Amino acid sequence: MEYKILSRINSPEDVKKVNIEDLQALCQEVRHCLIETVSNNGGHLSSNLGTVELTVALHRVFSSPKDSILFDVGHQSYTHKLLTGRFKNFNTLRQENGISGFMRPQESPHDPFITGHSSNSVSAAYGIYKANALNGNNNCVVSVVGDGSFTGGLIYEGLNNAGGGRGNFIIVLNDNKMSISRNVGGMARYLTKIRSKSSYHRFKHKIRKVLEKIPFCGKKIAHTIFNSKTMLKNAIYKSNIFESLGFSYYGPVDGHNIAELENIFKIAKSQNRPAVIHTLTVKGKGYSFAENDPKNYHGVSAFNVAKGADCSVKQNYSEVCGNTLCNLAKNDKKICAITAAMSSGTGLTAFSKNFKNRFFDVGIAEAHAMTFAAGLGIKGLKPYFVVYSSFLQRAYDQLLHDVAIAKIPVKICVDRAGIVGEDGESHQGLFDAAFLSTVPGMQIYSPCYYSELENIIKNSADFDFPCAIRYPRGCEPAYAEKFANNQEYSVFGNSDTAIVTYGRIFANAIDAQAELSKKGINTAVVKLNKIYPFSNDLLKTISKFKNIYFFEEGIKSGGIAEHLLAEISKISNTKFNIIAIENTFVGASSTACAFKKYNLDSDSMVKIIEGNC
Amino acid sequence: MEYKILSRINSPEDVKKVNIEDLQALCQEVRHCLIETVSNNGGHLSSNLGTVELTVALHRVFSSPKDSILFDVGHQSYTHKLLTGRFKNFNTLRQENGISGFMRPQESPHDPFITGHSSNSVSAAYGIYKANALNGNNNCVVSVVGDGSFTGGLIYEGLNNAGGGRGNFIIVLNDNKMSISRNVGGMARYLTKIRSKSSYHRFKHKIRKVLEKIPFCGKKIAHTIFNSKTMLKNAIYKSNIFESLGFSYYGPVDGHNIAELENIFKIAKSQNRPAVIHTLTVKGKGYSFAENDPKNYHGVSAFNVAKGADCSVKQNYSEVCGNTLCNLAKNDKKICAITAAMSSGTGLTAFSKNFKNRFFDVGIAEAHAMTFAAGLGIKGLKPYFVVYSSFLQRAYDQLLHDVAIAKIPVKICVDRAGIVGEDGESHQGLFDAAFLSTVPGMQIYSPCYYSELENIIKNSADFDFPCAIRYPRGCEPAYAEKFANNQEYSVFGNSDTAIVTYGRIFANAIDAQAELSKKGINTAVVKLNKIYPFSNDLLKTISKFKNIYFFEEGIKSGGIAEHLLAEISKISNTKFNIIAIENTFVGASSTACAFKKYNLDSDSMVKIIEGNC
Repeated sequence: MEYKILSRINSPEDVKKVNIEDLQALCQEVRHCLIETVSNNGGHLSSNLGTVELTVALHRVFSSPKDSILFDVGHQSYTHKLLTGRFKNFNTLRQENGISGFMRPQESPHDPFITGHSSNSVSAAYGIYKANALNGNNNCVVSVVGDGSFTGGLIYEGLNNAGGGRGNFIIVLNDNKMSISRNVGGMARYLTKIRSKSSYHRFKHKIRKVLEKIPFCGKKIAHTIFNSKTMLKNAIYKSNIFESLGFSYYGPVDGHNIAELENIFKIAKSQNRPAVIHTLTVKGKGYSFAENDPKNYHGVSAFNVAKGADCSVKQNYSEVCGNTLCNLAKNDKKICAITAAMSSGTGLTAFSKNFKNRFFDVGIAEAHAMTFAAGLGIKGLKPYFVVYSSFLQRAYDQLLHDVAIAKIPVKICVDRAGIVGEDGESHQGLFDAAFLSTVPGMQIYSPCYYSELENIIKNSADFDFPCAIRYPRGCEPAYAEKFANNQEYSVFGNSDTAIVTYGRIFANAIDAQAELSKKGINTAVVKLNKIYPFSNDLLKTISKFKNIYFFEEGIKSGGIAEHLLAEISKISNTKFNIIAIENTFVGASSTACAFKKYNLDSDSMVKIIEGNC
Repeated sequence: MEYKILSRINSPEDVKKVNIEDLQALCQEVRHCLIETVSNNGGHLSSNLGTVELTVALHRVFSSPKDSILFDVGHQSYTHKLLTGRFKNFNTLRQENGISGFMRPQESPHDPFITGHSSNSVSAAYGIYKANALNGNNNCVVSVVGDGSFTGGLIYEGLNNAGGGRGNFIIVLNDNKMSISRNVGGMARYLTKIRSKSSYHRFKHKIRKVLEKIPFCGKKIAHTIFNSKTMLKNAIYKSNIFESLGFSYYGPVDGHNIAELENIFKIAKSQNRPAVIHTLTVKGKGYSFAENDPKNYHGVSAFNVAKGADCSVKQNYSEVCGNTLCNLAKNDKKICAITAAMSSGTGLTAFSKNFKNRFFDVGIAEAHAMTFAAGLGIKGLKPYFVVYSSFLQRAYDQLLHDVAIAKIPVKICVDRAGIVGEDGESHQGLFDAAFLSTVPGMQIYSPCYYSELENIIKNSADFDFPCAIRYPRGCEPAYAEKFANNQEYSVFGNSDTAIVTYGRIFANAIDAQAELSKKGINTAVVKLNKIYPFSNDLLKTISKFKNIYFFEEGIKSGGIAEHLLAEISKISNTKFNIIAIENTFVGASSTACAFKKYNLDSDSMVKIIEGNC
């Protein structure tokens, strides 16, 4: 495609200059670019296809970066990126040093805030809005929020705080009925109700009809009632949830009609008070494959545009977890599974179909999921909360307070633990081993191979204490047939020098061991399956080595290596070297590149050990 | 007082047997016991005085422990404790091994879940309710929630998930217009609106009046409209926020009228579907001092019943923080202060009065507070989020994701860091040093003395990176005049053996040093003011010691001592001993007792060091 219009858009000011009759063509170009880029690089598709017109209309009414426009979650900000000077580099989407798949302030002044995790944009936008006021300007702050994000408690905290008062603080509710999967919960049902016809309109119409039938004075009465500001506003209009919390409510409006959108944005802007604009969009709009299957096109790997993406489910850690839970649940009626709007990503699709009454999709609500699991657990059920590592961060307090103090045997399956690759900083699972190991009484496992993951999930069903089982995104590494076992730890090789590690980079350690051996350097490799706390047996074994190289795919500060060093230093003079992610966030890149950069690949292991010998 | 009725109540069944005419007397006895006990032991008063009738009525309609009754927050559960077999031991309230000041499952089967942190009860109750269903029973689950707790996002996540469907899942909204201070936000305003007369009633009345004036057929039309179930229910009744989320709504009802309460509880129970019962109570009811000043009687130290509590503000770390921020804000218009419903406890009362437009009480919403602060910070303001350590746990993800990735210079003042004493497990500030130090780029300070706290707060105003400044509950320890300084670290004494520590237990180390000296054992004491990350200068100094004893008032796993060991072990063979809280929660007791129990008092320090020499 030639991108006649898009290629000339270098800033939002250029969007404002596009002739009205060319807007549809612009949107077509944007869609084409989205499909082309995502089909090459992988990324988020459905949500971006659904917000093309919405984003164009926003940039015609508001003036970024003076006005701040936030997208919640940032994975629906691709069109925004294309319209704010990033079209030319858009082919680097999600690549190392390329365009981020989320809003990223370091990338552009048009990205006012990072929005990788859901439901944070209202809080951030309200902070920006208050800062504008204190800085003496009345610049607009607009937050585009999917209805899925409305299941997260953070957004409610933001709404509760931000309603009322004056100022150009505008929330655009992008209602496509979806989170990643179909949206769940009371708010989703409520939105369904007000979606096609709001109760207000329906009620108004009905009463008017009744009144107008009254002879003589009916029409006049109807007029009086429906033009009485106080009555309607107080009794019906304000009864809308958003109005109740102090926002003006506009809509619902067709989110693919640019003229209508521009119109309603202008009205909201002119009112100078907090507003919610309810727009209806179609997730996947304009690409039939995605429109028909928005869930599977939410986030995709590279694919062929004409044939569509390969949405078949492949064997990976998530699937192993889901299948194992299914098998367990068949014979044990106490097994429950909980997801925070991630049933497909966490491998729970089969469980959700086969054990409907024991499957709970609670929405994007990790904190609630944890406490809810504790409620199930305290009554004797066996709850498995399956959650991505970086989102589990949101349930740290609930784990400490609601689960761990009373030692409720909640089982946490921590998916996407470790480096996740192209999603970048906000989605790396690099902190869970550290924060989980601060929690008194937690038992933490980090199996390397599928069979080990399966085994520990099975065993954990009867644990009477809280535990976490962590595993990375993707597939098991090499050598399963040779090294997979169900020991809490195992030692391969015999030497004074040991490489200690856990999880999938164990395979890198095995490669390093072979390479070092070729160079005449003999090492042992210790694979931890249970990573915390340590058994006396493990400590005894470790303390016999003279040199330890602990490679950890996680943050160093508070990680497992530091804990092990603290124990070992009590009983031996072992020289202890820690190689982990040190005091930094890890950006987007392939997992292999990240391993190399942070010395977790076999080559780096060899170099480090060789250098010290 | 004789406690004629109360002394014969050994279980909720006995509450049911009390004659209706004796209920007022029972309530009087309960109030007397509450005032007497709290005036002796300290504790939460106003909220408990407000829920006496409510709790009596609950136990007359529901059957604990078969039915689960949760109080959110548990500090309003004292009457529940008195009525469930704990009257005789109630004089041990908040003492070591005594009755906990919160719900505590380990204490009684009538405490179904721990509720020390706000807003978790709906999630827990919904878990219990779902577990009941899966376990094949339809026992009731009741959650008593203060309106203050409705500012927390967790409760919204719970409501969103729990609405709709069938079953005896009942939320009693205890609306006293207060959090600890006056409640804030959109939900609070909304409750005010529906409090005295719901919009429904007001609107109905107005339209009916208009219609009835119509000649001939007016009354008939009015009748038709107002008896049409679908119209009213869909358009108005369901427009109540709780109805919108899938709950039946009852109320508001006088929360001090036992007969009315019993009646409405019975109705809700009979409906077998999720319900919210809105009760109106007076915080502090029945004790004039508390009624007139519920905020200051929310949590009190021991006091004289006739004279009332001494509510004057004393010098303590919180006050030093608040005063320092006030002084800063006078000359720097960018200074802002944020509290999560804790303005008085965190010393911000003066700030809130003097700098109204730069003071933000966001409700019990720590996660939002953090992200909101990031929004302020990204626009150049200097936000200080002042928060208790144990509640900061709720903002871990927001700190990592919203603040730290973009390095926004949010300043966190961490109050109640370390042992807090009688509030027990749920309120100890023992995890912040560990989880804060996992966050890339965070700078963490833990001053020992007021002047040090003041100094670091002042300096932090111009930091261009995120930082945390932590300090304990209460007053500075001894020796300020001798040892307070503004160095990042300082060494007192000269020896091969060093006691390393930070915060208030530095004074214990100084005592230990003196005592050891008397025994002929020479030690140095290293006081860390900045605790993370470490300067090269500090590492060089520390590495010169042969023996280190690092005493840490915090969790060992992931604490500062482990990090220091990891650095020191790279450069020296220093023998490194860590004494900290190891893999356990710390129960209620005086701070002095806890120090003794966990080897952080000077006697223990002496014994440990002496034993190794």
